[in-house]
Amino acid sequence: MPSNLESAMQMLIKTFHKYSGKEGDKYTLSRGELKELLIEELGSYLGNSKDNEAVEKVMNDLDANNDGEVDFTEFIILMGALTVACNDFFLDKPKEDSAAKTD
Amino acid sequence: MPSNLESAMQMLIKTFHKYSGKEGDKYTLSRGELKELLIEELGSYLGNSKDNEAVEKVMNDLDANNDGEVDFTEFIILMGALTVACNDFFLDKPKEDSAAKTD
Repeated sequence: MPSNLESAMQMLIKTFHKYSGKEGDKYTLSRGELKELLIEELGSYLGNSKDNEAVEKVMNDLDANNDGEVDFTEFIILMGALTVACNDFFLDKPKEDSAAKTD
Repeated sequence: MPSNLESAMQMLIKTFHKYSGKEGDKYTLSRGELKELLIEELGSYLGNSKDNEAVEKVMNDLDANNDGEVDFTEFIILMGALTVACNDFFLDKPKEDSAAKTD
């Protein structure tokens, strides 16, 4: 049985390919595939991902080599940044709550 | 219910804290905690992680700010690199197999 970290890695790989394989280059996310992934997989994190402008911004931020596609490495950079942001959010919450109590 | 990507992110966060919380600074991995994580969670990827030298190398590679600890961001960089390596391995495999057949 895979460990937790192995499962997390497999899930990242499988989910990327679930969307990247839909059209065009099987190993990269087109704009449409990225939008679908953002809405279906990260809707609760990137609330306004239905908004084309938000998707355009994420696309431009991710598309480091400017080929109009998001490859796996660029995708992992997004996921890493989101995961660090989540971790920081859950760590800061108790600190903020206790600070609020002492005010 | 969390999506696949949300589950993967949560698993990365929970697993890091499972080990980082054991001794010293609750939010960073000491050498001992890192070794335990590598053996228990990534043993099949980093086969020789029982070998102190291998752990030392991973520690030095990860410990970007040289504080002798691995923080969450440094951990995510490791996980990102491993996940990209895994993805490349599984993508190259079919290409190698088909190349081997044509030799």
